[in-house]
Amino acid sequence: MATHISPDGDALGSAIALSIALESLGKKTTVYDKDPVPEFYRFLPGHERLTNSIPDNSKTSNLILLDCNDPERAGLEKMIFPSSAVIDHHETEKEFGDIRWIEPHAPATGLMLFHLIKKLGVKISKEIAINLYSAISIDTGTFRYSNTTPDVLRIAAELIEAGADPSFISENIYESWSESRFRLMLKVLETLEINNNVAITTVTLDMFKETGALVADTETFTGFPRKLKSIKVSALFREMEKDYYKVSLRSKGKEINVAKVAEKFNGGGHRNAAGYRIRSDIRTAKETLLKAIEHVYA
Amino acid sequence: MATHISPDGDALGSAIALSIALESLGKKTTVYDKDPVPEFYRFLPGHERLTNSIPDNSKTSNLILLDCNDPERAGLEKMIFPSSAVIDHHETEKEFGDIRWIEPHAPATGLMLFHLIKKLGVKISKEIAINLYSAISIDTGTFRYSNTTPDVLRIAAELIEAGADPSFISENIYESWSESRFRLMLKVLETLEINNNVAITTVTLDMFKETGALVADTETFTGFPRKLKSIKVSALFREMEKDYYKVSLRSKGKEINVAKVAEKFNGGGHRNAAGYRIRSDIRTAKETLLKAIEHVYA
Repeated sequence: MATHISPDGDALGSAIALSIALESLGKKTTVYDKDPVPEFYRFLPGHERLTNSIPDNSKTSNLILLDCNDPERAGLEKMIFPSSAVIDHHETEKEFGDIRWIEPHAPATGLMLFHLIKKLGVKISKEIAINLYSAISIDTGTFRYSNTTPDVLRIAAELIEAGADPSFISENIYESWSESRFRLMLKVLETLEINNNVAITTVTLDMFKETGALVADTETFTGFPRKLKSIKVSALFREMEKDYYKVSLRSKGKEINVAKVAEKFNGGGHRNAAGYRIRSDIRTAKETLLKAIEHVYA
Repeated sequence: MATHISPDGDALGSAIALSIALESLGKKTTVYDKDPVPEFYRFLPGHERLTNSIPDNSKTSNLILLDCNDPERAGLEKMIFPSSAVIDHHETEKEFGDIRWIEPHAPATGLMLFHLIKKLGVKISKEIAINLYSAISIDTGTFRYSNTTPDVLRIAAELIEAGADPSFISENIYESWSESRFRLMLKVLETLEINNNVAITTVTLDMFKETGALVADTETFTGFPRKLKSIKVSALFREMEKDYYKVSLRSKGKEINVAKVAEKFNGGGHRNAAGYRIRSDIRTAKETLLKAIEHVYA
């Protein structure tokens, strides 16, 4: 099985949980991710299952693509598998997979796997519970986003009973920052500009150098300016090389669908969290984004 | 009924919910708080029930003290009531009340009221649901603290079904900051010092003047440095007047009980959230705190 590059908690937790469940049924699994597991997700039991080397038997193995629906998102576009299945909850859909289970309204892929693993007759072990609770936590902002349904909370309750510890998981997800990450965030917040209810922050290659923080450390930075009441969209421009930026978008409430904004730049994502890449100087890149948001608004 | 000074979400949500429930049973209630409802809690439906004037009929009214168990905490130490009841979940206990219902293990007073209101046969209306969901949210860090039990999540699910909107409430609690509050927080974070896994930040009267932010705006600031993995206790020193500080303490995990630390300075609170006041210059005040924490540790 495989999940997307720059894996987040839903990707990792879902993949690990499914691997544990399938192995308990006697299946052999390889959990592939092109990128390594970020330091702060290494509390997930079973994270060492993740590998970035493709096994020799891949030509005879079946592919299960998790938390994405395009092999390209997993860096597997050149591979051929005898059969393939997709389990995902993203809105932007590609035509791939012999079996396609895509539920854009599911709050997290981890939630879909909770139902699947139970259906398979596998007991939710403590390891599975921690992985699924973490997956669901990440994609619902730990029950703060609009995708927090009564069902999400009842399943979370069941996962606690199966051994997931909510404060242990939240501390690992939200409160395990290195000092360099913390210092980087303060630098980034100093760059805050607000235009028309859109918050823009920037992180430069120099800032990474100055603080010693890593790219993965910026994962939650985009959400931060949402704290401001006036903000409807928060955008983080991350410099990847000169005049080349990765842009993360987060929106608040139901007014603006940032997936639609990201699509204008050949990106994608969800209603409240999306992203794209742009080759441009920073000033033009920011202006283009503000115009695109205005356009989607109108 | 009355609740404590500097009311937080659990105090306000509990008081408003009980008032709505009792009035629906034909009772007359006055909801007293010495301090006004902070701006960012005015999304609570029924917040206008709060008053800081004591009604004329107080001598013949019964008192229900909520989310505290000492009339002094509500600024009512000079009043006499024909009878009194206490509903609270704080650890530090005073001998007050004809009826005393104190559950130090209850995650929130709002949770106790959920059971009480149902027991009274009152339907959980949308207004009650929003107030109780907010009360429970605040005291569990919206399901991130160690007091997040399966029961808490199932009751939260029931409150969503009764009309509470999780993202609306979370946005109001966590994402309705004014720009002055945001600027104040950046200033406060710049004062961060770390000693022995204790984070200390300071907010001065000058910072309030410079930013135009209010004292109530600092409510969640103490929790912020908990993001750092190394931090076990976070302390915020708020200057009230020259050489007089209010100290808020937050601890992470189960290792340090900050209520015990606060008691050393005649303060109080919970295991993970407590506070006290100290007359001292700032340097001595910080040193005294670090020593007290070391002492409780040992």
